[in-house]
Amino acid sequence: MAQERARTGSRERLVEATRELLWQHGYSGTTPAAIRARSDVGQGSMYHHFPTKVDLAAEALRVSSAEAERSIDAYLDEAPSPGAAVARYLSKPRDGEKGCRFGRLTLDDAVLEDERLRRPVSETLTWYRQRMEALLREGQASGELRPDFSAEAVGATVIAMLQGAHVLARADRSQASYERVIEGALTLLEGLESRR
Amino acid sequence: MAQERARTGSRERLVEATRELLWQHGYSGTTPAAIRARSDVGQGSMYHHFPTKVDLAAEALRVSSAEAERSIDAYLDEAPSPGAAVARYLSKPRDGEKGCRFGRLTLDDAVLEDERLRRPVSETLTWYRQRMEALLREGQASGELRPDFSAEAVGATVIAMLQGAHVLARADRSQASYERVIEGALTLLEGLESRR
Repeated sequence: MAQERARTGSRERLVEATRELLWQHGYSGTTPAAIRARSDVGQGSMYHHFPTKVDLAAEALRVSSAEAERSIDAYLDEAPSPGAAVARYLSKPRDGEKGCRFGRLTLDDAVLEDERLRRPVSETLTWYRQRMEALLREGQASGELRPDFSAEAVGATVIAMLQGAHVLARADRSQASYERVIEGALTLLEGLESRR
Repeated sequence: MAQERARTGSRERLVEATRELLWQHGYSGTTPAAIRARSDVGQGSMYHHFPTKVDLAAEALRVSSAEAERSIDAYLDEAPSPGAAVARYLSKPRDGEKGCRFGRLTLDDAVLEDERLRRPVSETLTWYRQRMEALLREGQASGELRPDFSAEAVGATVIAMLQGAHVLARADRSQASYERVIEGALTLLEGLESRR
């Protein structure tokens, strides 16, 4: 039993360490040695739980994705209307330079070339995109938002604005660059409100 | 003289090869050996022209930046109005998955940690951002666009939408994902037009 618990603990520590390292350094920048050092798990135990780096990264992405979806749902539920929920999502405090756990992996050829890594990245970004699309559609149905735009297209653009905000913040090493994009995004979003 | 010409030729071939490889594989993914193979230039000649990979990459970025700014100016000059120029910039045909030569480097720690590489990336993206800001301001001055928004913020958001469109296209390996973002971006841009 004690051994079983210890094994469970090391598995979780490996996944947690990998999640953090993927976020900080990307996939190619994360070495098995760094994962072992951060999780304090030995080589034998690591290979017992995850035979390859891809197995470990795929599990880390699965956990990150499930957690992100849960937390964003709770966050959006507090907005008073669908349009306000989209604005709330854009305005959520974020570390601009650190970037999105998923978006940042799309620049790594090693991720794009392995379907076990690319697919969860794509699926998570698609989930966010469709979440925005559903909110925009709801806003159109309730009359809060104009009926004459494609919720599918604008939903994609909302996610793209966030991803691009991170790109500019990283280039400039500046949180202000991130926030400038969000300010513009909120301005553009206001143009979708029904004209009174 | 013949020797001088040959040397000029190899320098240019090195820079061209580096520009292409940076675009395809990023900075960390580009090896000196790959640059030599692509440019057909030997090791001695390479180190004669560029003592380090950073020197070569910095020069490649300088050339790419100058070329991008020249070509975008010519492209925007054909639009009938400032607002139309912003839309034209967003609609320019692009390979969504290949991405932006500059934006794609912002996810590479090695670029962000070396000011000789990060600065030209930041400066080029800033140049684009300010180009959009100037067009939006012109549109506001002429009455084409609403006076009540920050051209600085929206200019940044226009650039972010493009960068984010590339992120989504890469994640999905899909040009359609790129184009969906652009469609939404153009919709949002329409909301800036003066109400008639």
